[in-house]
Amino acid sequence: MHKILQKSNLFKGLRQNEIEKVLAKTHHQIKEYEPEQVIAYSGCKCERLYLLLEGSVRGEILDENGKTLKVEDINAPDTFAEAFIFAENSEILVNVVANSRAKILIIFKDDWIGLIKSNDKILENYLGIISNRFVLVTRKMKSLSMKKIESKLANYFLRLKKANNSNRFKLNSTHQQLADYFGVTRPSLSRSISKMVRGKIISTNKKEIEILNEKKLLQLL
Amino acid sequence: MHKILQKSNLFKGLRQNEIEKVLAKTHHQIKEYEPEQVIAYSGCKCERLYLLLEGSVRGEILDENGKTLKVEDINAPDTFAEAFIFAENSEILVNVVANSRAKILIIFKDDWIGLIKSNDKILENYLGIISNRFVLVTRKMKSLSMKKIESKLANYFLRLKKANNSNRFKLNSTHQQLADYFGVTRPSLSRSISKMVRGKIISTNKKEIEILNEKKLLQLL
Repeated sequence: MHKILQKSNLFKGLRQNEIEKVLAKTHHQIKEYEPEQVIAYSGCKCERLYLLLEGSVRGEILDENGKTLKVEDINAPDTFAEAFIFAENSEILVNVVANSRAKILIIFKDDWIGLIKSNDKILENYLGIISNRFVLVTRKMKSLSMKKIESKLANYFLRLKKANNSNRFKLNSTHQQLADYFGVTRPSLSRSISKMVRGKIISTNKKEIEILNEKKLLQLL
Repeated sequence: MHKILQKSNLFKGLRQNEIEKVLAKTHHQIKEYEPEQVIAYSGCKCERLYLLLEGSVRGEILDENGKTLKVEDINAPDTFAEAFIFAENSEILVNVVANSRAKILIIFKDDWIGLIKSNDKILENYLGIISNRFVLVTRKMKSLSMKKIESKLANYFLRLKKANNSNRFKLNSTHQQLADYFGVTRPSLSRSISKMVRGKIISTNKKEIEILNEKKLLQLL
């Protein structure tokens, strides 16, 4: 087990005997799951650390007909749900189900606090993992939010093209008015327009817009 | 200062003399900033903890014309950029600028590690703050992602209405085909359709869709 743990992001940088020592003095469980067994239910408070030692598990959700659908696979030696342990709202958002026979190291919150306090390296690894998750999801959100604005702008420009019966038309609104109309901030709107200009989808000249690549504009919808 | 710190999420639950003791043995800076002074630049590696003791600062970004625009205000005694300290990519995404005269407690990463190791309560408070940020941004992303799909669906349904010249029409694609076409997962798509049905915007009957509230559908665009 300690060999696998050495390869995990959580225990990286530790020698095998260090890992042995740390686990010897930390209360932990190793649980085995059969294929298709549910490990954690969506909505459950998840105040424990899970580290997959062997096998593969998946996150899945229920659709409106009660059918389950996979959203993510997790493979050994990854941790999962680790950023929920200390959140006020620690309810996880998916069911976690074993894909294959799975062996999981489980450490409860209080024991986990004891462990990270006793070992600098593990504390830093853990802080790195949850901070990286935060940065990743923040960047994803920014990109998603930008795509949403691009889609609204594309729709708007195509309507103006039709109304003016021309690829070149004037905007009758300021960026601020447009941003208010779309329910987004002005800087976000301006960044989206700039991105379209850089991508040669449109060109701008003061309040005039010209559609340069209608195909790409349609793809943004 | 210790009175203000007691009110912060980071030092909550500690007595004033405990806070004094902790800070006495932790290397830290207290810096004062004039109104409009830049505290941290977007793109800077942010491997330190900032806790606002007095005043107010803002996060701001540059738009395409080089103009700066506010995105968020932070007031004493809040921390900021705290979830970036331990991330691999610790570059912050905004400029941080003083709104008023501001007094800030700054603790560098290595000293910060020492501090959270020495005090259970502060460690747990810190883990709570960054985990809460993660959960918040994850939920925001889910909601944003859902709105994006609703917008695509609304657009698609309005086009079908026009093509069929009727509020009632058949879908010629399965949910899976539609999801592939929109570049989203099937469960996400199905959830969006269910939400529209619950909101009485559309009704579904097998592969038939009826638009019940076109005004609301247009608002989703």
